[in-house]
Amino acid sequence: MRTFCPLFDLGDANIRIRKEASSNYPAYPARRRGNFMPHITITRPSKTLWRASLDNGPVNLVNSQTIVELRSLIDEAEADTDLAVILFESANPGYFMAHWDLAEDPAKTTDLPPGKTGQQPFVDVLIRLSKLPVLTVSAIRGRARGAGSEFVLATDIRFASRERAVLGQFEVAAGLIPGGGAPSRLPRLVGRGRALEILAGANDFDGDLLERYGYVNRAIPDAEFEGFVDSFVTRVAGFGRRVIGELKQCVDPLTLPDDVEFPPQADLFWTTVVQPEVQDWARRQFERGLQQSGEVEENLGEFAARR
Amino acid sequence: MRTFCPLFDLGDANIRIRKEASSNYPAYPARRRGNFMPHITITRPSKTLWRASLDNGPVNLVNSQTIVELRSLIDEAEADTDLAVILFESANPGYFMAHWDLAEDPAKTTDLPPGKTGQQPFVDVLIRLSKLPVLTVSAIRGRARGAGSEFVLATDIRFASRERAVLGQFEVAAGLIPGGGAPSRLPRLVGRGRALEILAGANDFDGDLLERYGYVNRAIPDAEFEGFVDSFVTRVAGFGRRVIGELKQCVDPLTLPDDVEFPPQADLFWTTVVQPEVQDWARRQFERGLQQSGEVEENLGEFAARR
Amino acid sequence: MRTFCPLFDLGDANIRIRKEASSNYPAYPARRRGNFMPHITITRPSKTLWRASLDNGPVNLVNSQTIVELRSLIDEAEADTDLAVILFESANPGYFMAHWDLAEDPAKTTDLPPGKTGQQPFVDVLIRLSKLPVLTVSAIRGRARGAGSEFVLATDIRFASRERAVLGQFEVAAGLIPGGGAPSRLPRLVGRGRALEILAGANDFDGDLLERYGYVNRAIPDAEFEGFVDSFVTRVAGFGRRVIGELKQCVDPLTLPDDVEFPPQADLFWTTVVQPEVQDWARRQFERGLQQSGEVEENLGEFAARR
Repeated sequence: MRTFCPLFDLGDANIRIRKEASSNYPAYPARRRGNFMPHITITRPSKTLWRASLDNGPVNLVNSQTIVELRSLIDEAEADTDLAVILFESANPGYFMAHWDLAEDPAKTTDLPPGKTGQQPFVDVLIRLSKLPVLTVSAIRGRARGAGSEFVLATDIRFASRERAVLGQFEVAAGLIPGGGAPSRLPRLVGRGRALEILAGANDFDGDLLERYGYVNRAIPDAEFEGFVDSFVTRVAGFGRRVIGELKQCVDPLTLPDDVEFPPQADLFWTTVVQPEVQDWARRQFERGLQQSGEVEENLGEFAARR
Repeated sequence: MRTFCPLFDLGDANIRIRKEASSNYPAYPARRRGNFMPHITITRPSKTLWRASLDNGPVNLVNSQTIVELRSLIDEAEADTDLAVILFESANPGYFMAHWDLAEDPAKTTDLPPGKTGQQPFVDVLIRLSKLPVLTVSAIRGRARGAGSEFVLATDIRFASRERAVLGQFEVAAGLIPGGGAPSRLPRLVGRGRALEILAGANDFDGDLLERYGYVNRAIPDAEFEGFVDSFVTRVAGFGRRVIGELKQCVDPLTLPDDVEFPPQADLFWTTVVQPEVQDWARRQFERGLQQSGEVEENLGEFAARR
Repeated sequence: MRTFCPLFDLGDANIRIRKEASSNYPAYPARRRGNFMPHITITRPSKTLWRASLDNGPVNLVNSQTIVELRSLIDEAEADTDLAVILFESANPGYFMAHWDLAEDPAKTTDLPPGKTGQQPFVDVLIRLSKLPVLTVSAIRGRARGAGSEFVLATDIRFASRERAVLGQFEVAAGLIPGGGAPSRLPRLVGRGRALEILAGANDFDGDLLERYGYVNRAIPDAEFEGFVDSFVTRVAGFGRRVIGELKQCVDPLTLPDDVEFPPQADLFWTTVVQPEVQDWARRQFERGLQQSGEVEENLGEFAARR
């Protein structure tokens, strides 16, 4: 059995982050249900369309709670015989989904009940998401790096705001291999050369380059972005579940990575995260402001490479 | 054994179409050979180059006769030891090949003698076309949707007029899965994300976007289009059959979909076409002007989604 | 056992070339080590970064000596536990690596001791290069055609000067199939349609089109080229060998062609090179100035198709 390790021992930095996070959070509209603050809020404009809005703290992090909520969302979507399209969007204008929450105790993830695919929890929800018999669309207006980028890569379609979208896999700059599928999914979209540039370069990619590389379907001027996305998802949702389900059933086996590709990548992530150089990287970045509003998260591609 | 079903029972609409089609047809130059009006006219500028001109009615439909003619063309091309390049172009400035003729009795297709691959007749000719030991080039100036798009996807190279080319797979808007190979061929050209957008969105793509997505090789300004295409096919034809045949022999096994991918897609087409919602879609579209000159065929991407 | 054949019997043309080559050569900075004039000069700006500068005559040809030097370079890179990035660049502003030296006695290549993969010597070094546990980057400022293009396709990343880079596979114009892997590597980067256009058309592609097709990662304005490339390789080299090695270990098996794809292509090259039409092509091109400074090498895409 694999032993998961605590991601990072942050000391004082950890305390600062938590405070900053909670003082900043009220700026977002409260979506509390009892004591539970959901990361994903689903609205249903019609029987065939869901809009899933992502919201978790000042930079929209992914953590164990996001996985739990994604499991529920996927279970519900599988059971709903009307649903045809799920649109993922962000309540946070600057961050679609920043990256994995490096300050969370990893036990919260490793102690989750096993997922249906038997793979690691984050990989498990991404595999299941990609195989849903509905079309999943990411409307990317802010930043999505690391696990956030891997999330959008696991959805069927990625539309990006030309001016505001930023994607990247910063992991290699931290001494890590992306563990949520990017090494498998990226080359299929952008080819080996561009995938290696994105992964090894570990830098940020803006809307224009994202489209030229095929990392996203297309980049749309921000002023037209909402209208374009609304019109696309409404149109497809109108075609109904049966035909979309049949389409996914045809295309998925021909285009998705084989599930066996993921465990070596995920294992490599967990074996490298304990390396002292990775721990040092994290400590330095947290001291500079990682996971807080500000320049580090705004320009993570640049900061990630600073020693 | 599969029972093929009549595609659509069109009632009065059918009669109107036939009349419109014949009254419009004389606008095109007569290419009658005896009583037979061919869909494909081959001219041979040299021993190594054929130009195959497509022409069938006001919107250039594909039907059983097109399949019969394609079979002959492929037989001849296989037997011709000089031929190096076949250029496919359209005699109709607005339509490269609109789509499958939904008003034709499907028995005309299903009653054809079995093709060499044992696959369904349209799939059979596209598989054989893609494996010819000659280079096939589509010069796309007008619209090519549905089976028309699948035809150009089965040729080796697609050049598009930047201003006039329109490609699309409208089938999903009609409740259908494309049955002529698009779900297999598109992802290999444009990647999973863009393929799912093209197939699920079922909309029209113009020259500029066709190139950005990789759906065509490139989009060329219409004023330069003829010169560019002529020069390309003349150049390659000059290299001769041997080397082009050897090149195809190297590249085809590494890049073509496996033939086993096609039957599930084609079967799904024939099982869904009987669905009442598909029949209703067709009836509505024919009433609006499908398969006639006019706005429905001009903007099929838009009309296809109208309920 | 395969019998390799002399590439071309050039008669008088051969003598002219040798003279031209030696009279031109002194224009380049002398890098003589004793009596040995290396094709590849390595400088080491840091423990993790090598810059490999290519330089062989007026048009920077590839020949048996280049293979011998690449073998050493690869052996050294495999043994160096610090190295993370190798940048390949050219000392010749017009030519990154023109193409295979058609005037060299092929016995010099066929008599080399067998390479580690058991494949033909040039294929062998390209396979080993592509699987190095370091990131290899080609900085393409001048022309790279035929074997030169196959070299850059075997490196991990290709950056091109927008104004000055030219890539192409002219072989088919000469009646040859590219034997160094282009038929396998190109379709994975640019898709079947564009690969067949590049290979069958056998023409030159400039920086802008190289990027649009995905033949290179991106085309960068020449004025910014050096700065961009320096900054990229310095950045990645700073991430260190371990993580880059692990990344290559993840991505290589998912993206590289299977080694078994290469021998049929390489064999076809050696069986077609003896064809009289190929010999005639070479004689004509050498008479026009092949492998010498001047318009033939500058515009080989155009000259290659002249009968």
